[in-house]
Amino acid sequence: MTNPIESAVASIDLDRLLGRIDELARIGAIDGGGVCRLALTDEDKAGRDQVVAWMKALGLRVSVDQIGNVVGIRAGLEACDPVMTGSHIDTVRTGGRYDGNLGVLAGLEVVAALNDANVVTQKPIAVAFFTNEEGARFAPDMMGSLVYNDPHALQSTLDTVGIDGTTVRENLVRIGYAGNEPAGAIKAHAFIELHVEQGPVLEHDGATIGAVTGVQGIHWTEFSIVGESNHAGTTPMALRHDAGAVAIEIAGYALQVAATLGKGQLATVGHIHAHPNLVNVIPNEVVFTVDMRNTDEEALKIAVQRVAEYAEKTARRHGTTLRRKILADFAPVAFDEKMIALVESFANKHNYKAMRMPSGAGHDAQMFAPHCPTGMVFVPSVGGLSHNVKEFTHAGDIHAGVKLLLSMICELAIIEKK
Amino acid sequence: MTNPIESAVASIDLDRLLGRIDELARIGAIDGGGVCRLALTDEDKAGRDQVVAWMKALGLRVSVDQIGNVVGIRAGLEACDPVMTGSHIDTVRTGGRYDGNLGVLAGLEVVAALNDANVVTQKPIAVAFFTNEEGARFAPDMMGSLVYNDPHALQSTLDTVGIDGTTVRENLVRIGYAGNEPAGAIKAHAFIELHVEQGPVLEHDGATIGAVTGVQGIHWTEFSIVGESNHAGTTPMALRHDAGAVAIEIAGYALQVAATLGKGQLATVGHIHAHPNLVNVIPNEVVFTVDMRNTDEEALKIAVQRVAEYAEKTARRHGTTLRRKILADFAPVAFDEKMIALVESFANKHNYKAMRMPSGAGHDAQMFAPHCPTGMVFVPSVGGLSHNVKEFTHAGDIHAGVKLLLSMICELAIIEKK
Repeated sequence: MTNPIESAVASIDLDRLLGRIDELARIGAIDGGGVCRLALTDEDKAGRDQVVAWMKALGLRVSVDQIGNVVGIRAGLEACDPVMTGSHIDTVRTGGRYDGNLGVLAGLEVVAALNDANVVTQKPIAVAFFTNEEGARFAPDMMGSLVYNDPHALQSTLDTVGIDGTTVRENLVRIGYAGNEPAGAIKAHAFIELHVEQGPVLEHDGATIGAVTGVQGIHWTEFSIVGESNHAGTTPMALRHDAGAVAIEIAGYALQVAATLGKGQLATVGHIHAHPNLVNVIPNEVVFTVDMRNTDEEALKIAVQRVAEYAEKTARRHGTTLRRKILADFAPVAFDEKMIALVESFANKHNYKAMRMPSGAGHDAQMFAPHCPTGMVFVPSVGGLSHNVKEFTHAGDIHAGVKLLLSMICELAIIEKK
Repeated sequence: MTNPIESAVASIDLDRLLGRIDELARIGAIDGGGVCRLALTDEDKAGRDQVVAWMKALGLRVSVDQIGNVVGIRAGLEACDPVMTGSHIDTVRTGGRYDGNLGVLAGLEVVAALNDANVVTQKPIAVAFFTNEEGARFAPDMMGSLVYNDPHALQSTLDTVGIDGTTVRENLVRIGYAGNEPAGAIKAHAFIELHVEQGPVLEHDGATIGAVTGVQGIHWTEFSIVGESNHAGTTPMALRHDAGAVAIEIAGYALQVAATLGKGQLATVGHIHAHPNLVNVIPNEVVFTVDMRNTDEEALKIAVQRVAEYAEKTARRHGTTLRRKILADFAPVAFDEKMIALVESFANKHNYKAMRMPSGAGHDAQMFAPHCPTGMVFVPSVGGLSHNVKEFTHAGDIHAGVKLLLSMICELAIIEKK
C-alpha cells in the first residue's frame, strides 16, 4: 500500500498547474508576456473571479473578508484551525506571471492532487489570496495579510487613498469583494508560502529550493518638495527655490547611502513626479519615493535616518518646504526554525539542492510569523528578474516547489488515508 | 497744433489694454489667476480667434501663414515693408497672463491709439503673433518666428511630434490655422517687441524700462536612459541597471555644473518621467530634460559638453543605454545698437528710468535680429515671477511699456498727420 503523501505527490499534474498560470496571466496581459493587475482594479476583479471559480470547482468552501482577502477551505477530519498556504494575485504595473500567482495556484494544485489521490487530512487546509500585496496602487504593501493579522487596522486601511485618488473601501465595493467575514477570523495552525525568489541567488548557487530564513526590513518614504515655479532662463541659480534640484539632490544622496553603507543596504527611487514638468519651467513641486531595505534592523534605521536628515537640510538650504510621509515600515522578520528545517529536510528527501536564504522582498507570510509557525519555499527566478514582464521560472523548478509545498502541508495537517 | 506722436500717446487707453489682457486671460484660465493655453490646443485656438477678431475690428488686414503665424497690417502711405511688432499668445502649462500676450495686445493698443488720434504713418505697421513660442508642447520653442525667418525649416517643423504624440501639422489643420501665406513673405523693415522681463533685475534696480541688449544662448537636451526593471528588494545594488539612479546622477551633475561654473551659467531639470514609476520597482526607463543657458557662447558650449560626457560615462558605468536628443540650440543673439539706444532715448524722454540688460529668456525678436534692425523693451515682473500663475506687472509699468512701443513704432514708421 502506497504512502498517502507519495500518492498525492504522484498526483501533482504539472500541466494543470502551468495551464492555470497561463490562464490567469491572460487577465491583464501586457506586451512581452507580463501582467498588469493592480490591486482592486477591473483586471484584479477578473483574476479574483477566475481563482474563486477554480476554488469552488475543487470543492473548497470560499469566504471573503472585510479587506477582500479570499480563503478557500478543504475540510479535515477535525474541526480545528487549518494549515494555511497562500500568497497574492495582484501585480505591479509591469509584473510577471509568477510573483504571487504561483503560490496561490500551487496551493490549488496541492488541493487538486489530494482530491485526485483521495487523501484526507486530519486538519483542514486553507488556500488564501491576500489583497494588495504589491502596494503598487495603495500603500503599504502586504495590506491584506497585515489586516488579517491585525484586525484593528481595518478601518484606517479601508480609508487608504491610492495613486488615482480613490480609496480601498470604494474599490472593494466596486469590484464586489467587500466581504462579510471578519478579517483574521480563520486562524492558521501554521502558514507556508511558495514564491519565486525574485532575485539571482538560487540561480547563481545552482540550488532549486530556498529555505527562507526571514524577510528583510522594508522602509518606504514619500518626499514632497514644494518650491517656486519660475522661468528657467531669467532666474539666477542663487535666487531659485527649485523643487527639482532639491529632489534630485536628496534622491542622489539616498542611492549613495546604500552604495557606501554596504551591509546589504538597498535603496531604490522608483517613483518621481514633477510639476509642471516642462523643460523650461523650474518645478514648483516634486514628489518621489525612496524604498530602503536591509536584513539588519539597526543598519536600516541608520540609513533611513541619514536620508531624512539630509532631506531636511537640503530643502531648507534651497528655501523649499519638505513633507516626509512614511508609506511602509516593516521590521525584519525571522521565520520559525522548525519550519526552515522542515523545508530543508523535504528538499533533501526529494533530492533537490536547497539553501537557507533571507528574502529580499516582503511577503504575506511575514505577517503570519508572529502568530503561528511560518515558513516559505523559494524556487529560482531566471536571471533574477521580477517585477518585470520577462520574469520566468522553469517548469521543473515549479514542479519542485509544488512537491515541497504539498509535503509541508501534509506534514503539518497530518495525513490520514480515506 | 499738437505733435502727432504726442497726440497718439495721449490716445493710449490703458483700461482698454488691461481689459483685453483680462479678457484673453479668461481663455484657458487656471486656478490662481494663471493661464494654460499650450500651443495649438483648443484653448490656443480660442485665444487666436479672439485676437484675430480684435485685429479685424481695428481695421487690420489679417493673414495666416503656413506655420500658423498671424500678421495684422495697418496700411501706411507707402506700399513697403512694415515696421513690425509682436510676440506670442501661447503659454506654458502654468503660465501667467502677461508673458507674450502683453506684446501682442500692446501692439493692438498702439494701432487703436493711432486710429483714435487719426495718425497715419509713412510705412505700414504690422502686429503679429507667432506660433508656439513657449515650446511647452512642441520643441523647439520660438517655432513660429524661427520658420518665419527661415522658411526652409517649414516642412520638418510641421512634422514635429509633441508631448502628446501628435504633430504640429495635424494640430494646425485641426484648429484651422494652417494658413496659405508663405511663411516670412511679409518682410519686416524693423522689429520691436515689448515683453515682461520675467526676472527680478528691473525690480531690484528700481528701473521701469529694460533696453534689451540681446538674448542669452539656450540649449535643451532630452536624455533617455534605458536600464532593466527589477524588484527593489531582491536585486543587490551592484547587479542593478537602474535607469532612475543614472538619471538622478546625470541631472544632479548638470545642476552642479551650473553652480560651480558660475559665469551666469543656468541649468534647469524641468521635466522628468520614470517608467514604470512605482515605489518598489527599479525603473527601466527614465526620460528627463536639461535646459542650459548663458550669454557667453563659449561657456555654454563647455557646460553642455561636460554634461554630455558625464552622461555617457555614467550610463556606461551602470550598464544602461543612453540617448541624447538636442531639443533646442540657439546661440546668444545681440540686438541692433541703434535700436537699443532708441529705447533708452525714448525712456529718457518719457521720464522712465531705463537700464541696458540681456534677456534671460528666448524671444521671437531674436529670430528677426539677423535680418532687420531689432530691439526689445522690457517692463518689470513683480518678484521676478514668470511661467507662474502669480506672474504680475503693475498697470503703471504696462502704461510705460506701451508708450515706449508706440514711440518706437512711430519713429521707425515715420509719422505724417492725416
